[in-house]
Amino acid sequence: MHRLYFSLGSCSLASLIAFEESGLPYEPVRLDFSKQEQRSAAFLAVNPKGRVPALETPRGILTETPAILAYVAQSQPGASLAPLDDPFDFAEFQAFNSYLSSTVHVAHAHKLRGARWADEESSYADMRRKVPQSMRAAFQPIEELYLKGPWVMGDTYTLADSYLYTVASWLEGDGVALEGLPRVADHQRRMEARAAVQRARAVEAGK
Amino acid sequence: MHRLYFSLGSCSLASLIAFEESGLPYEPVRLDFSKQEQRSAAFLAVNPKGRVPALETPRGILTETPAILAYVAQSQPGASLAPLDDPFDFAEFQAFNSYLSSTVHVAHAHKLRGARWADEESSYADMRRKVPQSMRAAFQPIEELYLKGPWVMGDTYTLADSYLYTVASWLEGDGVALEGLPRVADHQRRMEARAAVQRARAVEAGK
Repeated sequence: MHRLYFSLGSCSLASLIAFEESGLPYEPVRLDFSKQEQRSAAFLAVNPKGRVPALETPRGILTETPAILAYVAQSQPGASLAPLDDPFDFAEFQAFNSYLSSTVHVAHAHKLRGARWADEESSYADMRRKVPQSMRAAFQPIEELYLKGPWVMGDTYTLADSYLYTVASWLEGDGVALEGLPRVADHQRRMEARAAVQRARAVEAGK
Repeated sequence: MHRLYFSLGSCSLASLIAFEESGLPYEPVRLDFSKQEQRSAAFLAVNPKGRVPALETPRGILTETPAILAYVAQSQPGASLAPLDDPFDFAEFQAFNSYLSSTVHVAHAHKLRGARWADEESSYADMRRKVPQSMRAAFQPIEELYLKGPWVMGDTYTLADSYLYTVASWLEGDGVALEGLPRVADHQRRMEARAAVQRARAVEAGK
């Protein structure tokens, strides 16, 4: 059995979608970040980093979205959720996820998580002001190049799509108009039509 | 044939070590960041992100260290450079690399790359001041938990070791004393004794 710790509005949505797409049984466990539940002793015993997603597996804990997405795809190969049999295609899948994690998510995090990297209120304000620009810049190569279309990897849906959908859902709140990224906007609409995405959104909202 | 674009002192060292460990033939191509060669039209045609590592393969370009490390391991399975046959072990390998990429490297980048996330000199100074603390904090779970010892994954060397070695080599310059991280320091010494690491360092230095 797998237990997936998530929070509303965070990158853990990508892992929720992954489980819903895979058909693997799992138990979603919601943490309320407004109550600092990610800092509770009980959760820090699960994931000492105090972050979501965290996945309890029969073998131990897994963290980090790119690792969890590849793990779900490899655990359910019949669902064809990643190009598992070709090292080059798999590396492209991984490079896309790694870019979302280390560049796009990091740009977004400067809106509310500036205390990770600075101490002054004036620095946090400066970081917040720059988020629309840095998020827009981070999405430019996705719009132009990496989103092959209609799905990230081309004709075949993969879990890179679940991750792109998740981080792109932050754009409007980060001050970036989706109209300027028409291919990303089209991808969002196509994702929202998927039953697994609708189920994951319901789980995320506690419905 | 593979062509690996790298720069001195950057995270591309991990990919250089990976190729040296693998025995795969490759051509290293050094970019001089002091001359802004990563922003040249020629290199932007290779990697529009203007970053290293970038790997030219017979099938196209690959970027992002975690993706390249897994690709090298999968391309040369006989070299046993990652736990390729077990989805859980492979996910742990990936989670470690993803943490280095999205948390540790990002903490380090606030020393010199503050312009990615802010515009004011006072913010850059604030970010620089915090780097010793944020790098130290990012290494704490590695020291305590993730570095199983003697290698990252336990008894078996993997390419996660090449990546840990690379980012840990930044610690002293970032104001973090290695004496406070004895298991990481021991790992650094063990890595420096490896012939592949010595060869990669010579390539990196242009020797």
